This record gives sequence, C-alpha cells and structure tokens, in this order.
Amino acid sequence: MTDFTPPIQDFRFLIHDVIGLDTVVNLPAFAEVSPDLVDAILEEASKLASSVLAPLNRIGDQEGAKLLDDGTVRTPTGWKEAYAQFCEGGWQGISATEAEGGMGLPILLGAAVAEMWHASNMAFALCPMLTAGAIEALTIHGSDQQRALYLSRMVSGEWTGTMNLTEPQAGSDLSKVRSLAVPKNDGTYAITGQKIFITYGDHEMTENIVHLVLARTPDAPDGVKGISLFIVPKFLVSETGEIGPRNDVSCVSLEHKLGIHASPTAVLSFGDQGGATGHLVGEKGKGLACMFTMMNNARLAVGQQGVAISERAYQQALDYSQQRKQGKTHTGDDAPIIMHGDVQRMLMRMRSSTEAARALSLYAAAQLDLAHHQPDENQRAAAQARADLLIPLVKAWSTDLGVENASLGVQVHGGMGFIEETGAAQHLRDARIAPIYEGTNGIQAIDFIGRKVLRDRASALNILITEARDTVKTANSGDQNGTVQTAAQQVQNALEQLSESTDIVLDRCSSDAAMAQALASPYLRQAALCVSGWLMLRALMTASSSPEATDFLSGKVKSCQFFFSQLLPEAAFMAAQIANCSESELHEPQPLF
Amino acid sequence: MTDFTPPIQDFRFLIHDVIGLDTVVNLPAFAEVSPDLVDAILEEASKLASSVLAPLNRIGDQEGAKLLDDGTVRTPTGWKEAYAQFCEGGWQGISATEAEGGMGLPILLGAAVAEMWHASNMAFALCPMLTAGAIEALTIHGSDQQRALYLSRMVSGEWTGTMNLTEPQAGSDLSKVRSLAVPKNDGTYAITGQKIFITYGDHEMTENIVHLVLARTPDAPDGVKGISLFIVPKFLVSETGEIGPRNDVSCVSLEHKLGIHASPTAVLSFGDQGGATGHLVGEKGKGLACMFTMMNNARLAVGQQGVAISERAYQQALDYSQQRKQGKTHTGDDAPIIMHGDVQRMLMRMRSSTEAARALSLYAAAQLDLAHHQPDENQRAAAQARADLLIPLVKAWSTDLGVENASLGVQVHGGMGFIEETGAAQHLRDARIAPIYEGTNGIQAIDFIGRKVLRDRASALNILITEARDTVKTANSGDQNGTVQTAAQQVQNALEQLSESTDIVLDRCSSDAAMAQALASPYLRQAALCVSGWLMLRALMTASSSPEATDFLSGKVKSCQFFFSQLLPEAAFMAAQIANCSESELHEPQPLF
Repeated sequence: MTDFTPPIQDFRFLIHDVIGLDTVVNLPAFAEVSPDLVDAILEEASKLASSVLAPLNRIGDQEGAKLLDDGTVRTPTGWKEAYAQFCEGGWQGISATEAEGGMGLPILLGAAVAEMWHASNMAFALCPMLTAGAIEALTIHGSDQQRALYLSRMVSGEWTGTMNLTEPQAGSDLSKVRSLAVPKNDGTYAITGQKIFITYGDHEMTENIVHLVLARTPDAPDGVKGISLFIVPKFLVSETGEIGPRNDVSCVSLEHKLGIHASPTAVLSFGDQGGATGHLVGEKGKGLACMFTMMNNARLAVGQQGVAISERAYQQALDYSQQRKQGKTHTGDDAPIIMHGDVQRMLMRMRSSTEAARALSLYAAAQLDLAHHQPDENQRAAAQARADLLIPLVKAWSTDLGVENASLGVQVHGGMGFIEETGAAQHLRDARIAPIYEGTNGIQAIDFIGRKVLRDRASALNILITEARDTVKTANSGDQNGTVQTAAQQVQNALEQLSESTDIVLDRCSSDAAMAQALASPYLRQAALCVSGWLMLRALMTASSSPEATDFLSGKVKSCQFFFSQLLPEAAFMAAQIANCSESELHEPQPLF
Repeated sequence: MTDFTPPIQDFRFLIHDVIGLDTVVNLPAFAEVSPDLVDAILEEASKLASSVLAPLNRIGDQEGAKLLDDGTVRTPTGWKEAYAQFCEGGWQGISATEAEGGMGLPILLGAAVAEMWHASNMAFALCPMLTAGAIEALTIHGSDQQRALYLSRMVSGEWTGTMNLTEPQAGSDLSKVRSLAVPKNDGTYAITGQKIFITYGDHEMTENIVHLVLARTPDAPDGVKGISLFIVPKFLVSETGEIGPRNDVSCVSLEHKLGIHASPTAVLSFGDQGGATGHLVGEKGKGLACMFTMMNNARLAVGQQGVAISERAYQQALDYSQQRKQGKTHTGDDAPIIMHGDVQRMLMRMRSSTEAARALSLYAAAQLDLAHHQPDENQRAAAQARADLLIPLVKAWSTDLGVENASLGVQVHGGMGFIEETGAAQHLRDARIAPIYEGTNGIQAIDFIGRKVLRDRASALNILITEARDTVKTANSGDQNGTVQTAAQQVQNALEQLSESTDIVLDRCSSDAAMAQALASPYLRQAALCVSGWLMLRALMTASSSPEATDFLSGKVKSCQFFFSQLLPEAAFMAAQIANCSESELHEPQPLF
C-alpha cells in the first residue's frame, strides 16, 4: 500500500494563477463560485481521496472484481462502503447542473477533483467517470420523463451508469454495431445482442444500473446512421420510479486484465430471454451523435487518468528514493538514492511532465466551461474550437505519459519495483489501459490531424500559436528575469517548429489520407509538447515573479526549467520525423511486414 | 498462446553479411566453424525455440513457479521436460570450451541462439543464462578440482548454476554484502546469511544446483575488498562426484513479481542449521573481481532479452494487425488494421528498432570473440575496449526498447492487448525486469560515461566514430544509390552530434561526478542510436547492393530507411538534453522534490 497526497498546491496555483479561475467564475453560470469555495472543494476531495480511496487501491488490485456463481458481480472489500461515502459527499454531481441535483460547478474544478479520484484509485474512479458520461448524455438527449426517472438518481450516485458501445466486431469502428432494438407495442424496444468491454457493467454497489446501449432498429440503414441509443436499466423502473423486476440483461463474464483489476469489465448479454426492455434516447438513428456529445468530457477524463497515474507513480518513486540508501555519491557513502543524478533525472522527468500535462488538461477543461457558458456566441464558438483542438492532445499525450512515468517509477525502485507488493508495478499495469480506451491514441492523433487541423486549415491552431507568441513576446521583454527569457526562447523555437510542421501537414496531407495517418502520432505529440510548453512558460512567469518565496514556487521554477531544457526538445525530434516522412515506405498501400 | 518464428534470415544476414562472420571464424580458435555449421546450429535452435519453448511461455506465466509446503520449488507444467530436451541438444555448452565439454562455438553464434531462447520463453531461458554465467566464472577462476567436480556437469546442463549477490541492504552497491564465510578445519567455509532476488535459486529440474555466493570472511576488510566468492552446492558433492546430503541452504520464499512468473526468484537462507558448506573460488577478497569476469557476457545476455522480447512482441502485433479488421482505409472498408498508417508506424517502430538493436548486440558479441581469440595482443586489446564500450549500450538501450516495444505491441492490439489471454501484456510484464537487473540501466549509463568514455578521454569511442565516418564516406561515394546516400548523410549528422556531445561530456564531467550522472542516460541513448545507425547503414549498403531481390532484402531496406528517417533523429533530442543541461537544477546536491 502506498500513501497518496493530492497535489492541492499545484491545483490551486494552476487554477488561480495560470489558467485563470477568474475567466471561468466570472461567467454568469458560476456567479456563486468563489475562490474560497474552490479551495474548500479541493480540500474536501483531497481528504476523501487520500484517506478513503487511496488505501483501497492495492486491495482492489489484489482481490479484483469477481463474477460469482449466482451471476452477480462482487467488487473488492471496502468498495461498497467507499462508494457510499463518495455519494454522500455529492461528488458524482460535481459538474452536473443544479437543475438536475448537481453542484453545478465548473468543469475546470471537476477536472481537478477527478484527477484526485483517479490518482488515489483509478479502478474505483472509473465507476463515477462512466456514470458522469451517462449523466451528460441524458442531460442533453433524455426526455423529461427519462431525466426525471433516471438522471436524478445518477447525479446522486444512487444508481450508476454504463456505456455499451463495443461489440466483438465493432471496436474503434462503431458503424459495425449489430445489437438489435425491435420496437414493441408499448413504445419500448426489445434489445438483443452482446456487448464487450463494459466498464462496471455489473456490480453490487447500487441497487440499479442504467445501461446506455447502442443498437440498430430493424429498418435502420447500414453504418452509423442506423444506430440509436437506448436506456436499458438493469432492473426495470416503473413510471413512478419504483424498481421492478430484473431486465433481460446479464453479465456473462468478466475480463482478466493486465490492470485495473477492481474495475469489473463485463461481457453483457442482452435479450437471452427474448429481449431486454430499452427506451430510445433522443432521435432514432442519432445514437452515435448522442454519444459524441459527451466525447470531449470523456476523453478529458481519460487524459486526467494519465496525469493522475503519473502523479501517483511520482509520489511513490520520490518516497522510495528518499528512504532507500545505496551507493556512494559526492555527498558520501550510503546516501539516499535521490542523491544520484540519474535518479534525480528520472524523478524530474516524472514530475515535470506530470505538471505540464496537468496544466494542459486543466486549461482544456476551462475551455469547455467557456464553450458552454460564455454569454457571447462567438466567444463560445472560439472556446469550443480550442477545446476540440486540445482534447485529443490531453487524451493521447497524458495517457502516453502515464505509461512512461509509471514505467520510470518502477525503474526508480530497482529490483523492488518488479515485486508486486511494492505497488509501483500496479501503477504501470493500471496506466496501460488509458492509451487504449475512449478512442485509442492513434485515433486521437487522426482526429487531431484530420478534424482539428486539416478541416479548418489549421485556423484554430494558428489562433492558439499567435496567442502563445504573444506570451513569448511578454516573456522576452526586459522586465523578465533571465530564466524566463531563456525559457521564452525555447518556447519560441518550439512554436516555429510547430508552424513548420503544420505547413508540411497542410501541404502533404490535405489530399492524402494515408500520409495524414502516418504523420498523425508525431504531430500530436509535437503539438502537445508545444502547447503545454506555452502553459509552462506562463507558470514559470507567475512563479518566478511571485513576491512569495515558498518551496512550492521554487520547485515549480525548477520543474519548468527542466521541462524547457530536457523535455521540450523532444518536439524537434517529432518535427524531424514529420519532415523526413516523405518516403514511400510510410504510405505504401500494401503491408510491408 | 502465441506463435514464434525465430528471425533466422535476419541472424544469417547480420552474421554473414554485416557483422562479418569471417572475421570471427577466421580466428584459429574457430578453425572448425564453417558457415554451414553456423546455419545448421541456427536451424536446430530455431526448432527447439519455436516448437518446445514458445508454447510453454503462456503456461509458465499462468502457473508460475511455486514454493510447496515441503520447501521444494515446482516449475510449471512441461518445464522439466523442456529443460531435459534443452540439455540433450547440448545447448547449455554452446559457448563453453570444448575442454570443458562445450561446443566451443563463437559468442556471436551463442548470442543469436540465446536471443531465440529469450524470445521463445524468457522466463525459461533465464535458467541457462544464469548457469552460463556460473560456467564462465568457474572456467576462469575455479580450481582444477572444482572444474572437475562442478563444471562439466554445468556445461552439460545436468546441474544448474545461480548467482548469489544481492542482499536486502546490498543491491546496486555490493560493497555492503554481509553474508559471512567462516573457515573450517577441513578447508571449507561455513556460510551464513540471506540472499534475495536469486534467479532459479531453487527448482526441481535438476538433481543439484551450484550456488555461487558472495560472502565476507571474518577477518576481511570493509568494502569490496573483503568479499570472496564461494561454491555452495544445494547438495554436497563428494570428492569423487557423488551427490551427498542436503547442504544448509533453503528457499525461504519466492517473490510475487510483475512478470517472468515461471522463473523462481528466491530468497535463500544460508546456514540456518549452523552454516552451509562453501568452497572458496579464486583468491580470498577477489570475489567481486571474479564476478566482474563474466559481467560483459551477462550484460550482453540481458541486452539480448530486450531484443528478444521486442521481436516476440513485434511478431504477435504483426499477426494481430493482419487478422483484425476494423475501420475504413483508402483501400476500402473493413480492412485489416495493418492498412492504417498509424498502425504501420507502430509496427515499423518495433521492427526497425529491434533490427537495429540486434545488429548492435551481435556486433558486440563478435567483439568479445575477437577480444578472446585474436592472435595479436593489440588487436585483442582493441576488441576488448570496443566490447567494453558497447556492452552498456546493448544492455541499457535494448532493454529500454524491449519495454517500449512490448508496450507498443499492447497498443497495436487495442482493447484486446489489455486482456491477459491475448498474451501481448505478458511481454510487457516480462520485459520490464530487463532494464533493472544485471546493473540497472542507470548504472549502465554511469558505467558508459565514466569507465568507458571519461576514463580513456573517449579514445575507444573516437576510434569507433572514425571507423563509422569511413563507412559514411564509402556510402556517400558516387557508386551508391540515392537511398544509401541519404542514409549516409543522416548517419554523418548523427556522428557529428555524438562528437559534440562527447566534447561536452569531456568538458563538463571530467571533474564533476554529479554532472556525469545527470548526463549519463541521454548520452548512452545517443551513443546507442548512433552506433546502431552505423551498423544499419552497413546493413542497408549490403541489402541494397545485393544482386538478389528477396522479400527479406527489400524489407530490410525499408526497415533501415525507417530507422534513419524516423528513429535516428532521437539522437539529436538526446544531444539537446546534453547541451542544455548546464543548469543548476540537475546537479543541485539537495533533493528538490
């Protein structure tokens, strides 16, 4: 078991001083959100994360979720009680509207809080993460009756929600969904089919589960336009909200996974007894569109898992490196291994990249708030465009970093890192799912290069680059200290390289989808490094100009310096990959292997 | 379970046409080694690896090694029979001298064969890998009697060997070993102490196990000079070679590890009944020196594990990408995912880096043969210096790649990669140990920058760089085709950058150990990329000038092109890290975290 202390200071610093909480709380929708309230929320969440969820992380890994002989799923020891505490705090509804019974707080704050849940116990936090997605879908697309019957009980956490998308032949390509929804006389549908990889597809923590299911009506056209979305509750719900008999859906098996053992990943079978009762959500044939509504939030949430697991792995490696004594350093014999330069490098890589990814994810979250609540329509659209641009970066880069940092965390532990009891290996096993689900990182990269850059001829990206150049200009001015000016030069170089890569992308990929696919991943990583470099520059300017002299602020300066000196140069490596990639081998149509 | 086909064609190509088998088999020691014999050996090993060892890989992972209540260790189903077949083939003695009953074949060939064992079943192959280390130590340092009693039976595989170095307080720093060896009247020693992380520390596959144990005699000085090496057989052996009673050594527990589950990692307790009987090997106080004798081979072997697991993960990902249909490409709907450019990129990263790392490891192996068997003393010394230079690159870079490639292999599988039954996740779990044991990769980097570069003021490295520049010159000449010339330019740039980084290292680190530690890891990776880039250039020249037109050769050209265009540019990223790293944050003596 490892301890976890949520990085409250970094959340506060980023939210208040770098991202600019004021731009969010000045929105009329958040008139009642004061800075003090934000801090109080962070403190409360921190307590639950560190004292209740974190201690269950290892237990969950060891026990795992179990499918019992009677067909019910059992979560690990302590899960049900922890979930009850989670609901009691009202945390499920943190970003849900007050009209639906939620706290109505900014997504920015919800994102910081969610990072704490994932860092303390990623397998546990998946349950509320999926419910939040279902809440969002029903908030927007559910009928009044559906919202009345289901939504309030999901916002409170009384019932959880699931997303039933994947089928064996329909993974990344949902157009291949085959589950059937046959209309019945009473206006409901009879759902049949098998869904796989259903996170928290069954469990005993709540008395009901609200499955959102993609299925195809009998007369529907092929492809995505034939897919509709249905509510399929585990237990039927009467019109007055009473829980009725079991619906015709059952958990056939749970997957045996590399990590997140405590999260039950279910194969769900619908309609073994003739058909599960389903209720159409939104319009027929618009199922995928309904799902896409919540995609930005869901991808942001998975990106936060990457940041979270990086933070957790870092804290554990840091702690070990301060305790473990081995070898000589310039400070003497039998020094703690943190005194070794190479160990410091590993720890700094973990810390600096985690802070950069956190800045990026919180910034993207704030853009979603602005996109939803700016009074001015043009400003809403601009914020939405920026959020759309950044979300794939957050999802893919942060989750790749999650794996890289968890792996470094194992390495810092030496031989002990490979022993399961140490706990470092669990972070690596848990982290490995995040680059895969909610759209693989390859799909994120293709989304970024295709929908977010090529489609608007890099207009949204260029607006961001221009804004970042303004920051560089300020940072380069005589008022700033040498550290900031050095950093500004490095960010300026990175922005120029990003512009060059973007020109190459526009030039080579506009009419060459295969080339776009081949360039997508390095281009995404380059963009993520540059944009987070911009935010780290803002962080450095704030930290180094602060009249206070705290350990946190001097640590932040070091972390930023390390980012510019040691991590940001990777962007030039990615740029070289893009520039070099004109050869035939990369878009040859036949397999080469 | 996944299939595995040893990359025989690549071994042959590298051994015969790139590394130059002739330089090795022309050595008098290998007068009887013909090219045909080499091919026959590769074929035979390939059969055993693919048909016997590979099918046991998943079984081993699932069952693991078990410590039974009676204190004995049980390997997984099929292990004992597979080990018998392994011994029957004489494989344990492939590189042992004929005088000791071995095949007396070049280390170059042994290395290729070892890669097959590790790729087919890394957890199994650890057993002969450790025995090989013990064989090497006893061949050089054992007395005539010790060699007669123990060595022949280890070369045949009849008994296995272990290395007992680590203790809880003595991991990377062996000077802290506390196990005691008290001399007895009969010339033996009474060994007491506890050793941890002992690979194949106990098992039931052979009737005896020869433990090599580092311990301290009562009058010994502190530190490394007080440590001696002892043979401590599991069962005592009479002077005539009869197996006698159990020695006073027992397996206290087996570690519960992230991977290589089938390899029993034991805690061994010596002397619970008063003292285990030990026989001094070599001189008193020279125990660590005896161990260092075999360090190059052992580190080469672990590096090969990295190459091996990369190859295995690549083959599995390739196979899946050809079977799994999903999504649209420019070639149509429902194409195999290998048709997606981003999947091709992942596969090419795996393939190209694996081939580069293989070239580097086989080249280093050939240098060891030359270092041992060149008739000319100066040439022996030069080869030894080059091997010493390259071994840390092989160990650290290949094993880092092993983890990176196994992780990419998981990613290619999408959701299925996270499911244990698929087998991709096992490769990641298994691969993760290799950067840690046999000297962590941080220690490899410090060895490289300190002992291999700073100590001789980069003399050995500069000789290699000069030789590589000659290759570039040839490649740049008008005789070569455009592909080769482009590649030559890229290698030339990389060599110039390496020279620049080396100048920085010599300048900043010669009297600053902390800075050397801080720069060590990126400097090692830069050097590994450049040296393997040189070898890939030689491979490209050979492949593209061949009169034959085979799929293998055209694939090799693509793989080399990808290396130069997409992977080698990482060397410039490492160079930037080194150049930028003058800031205080990296060698600040106090913990920053």
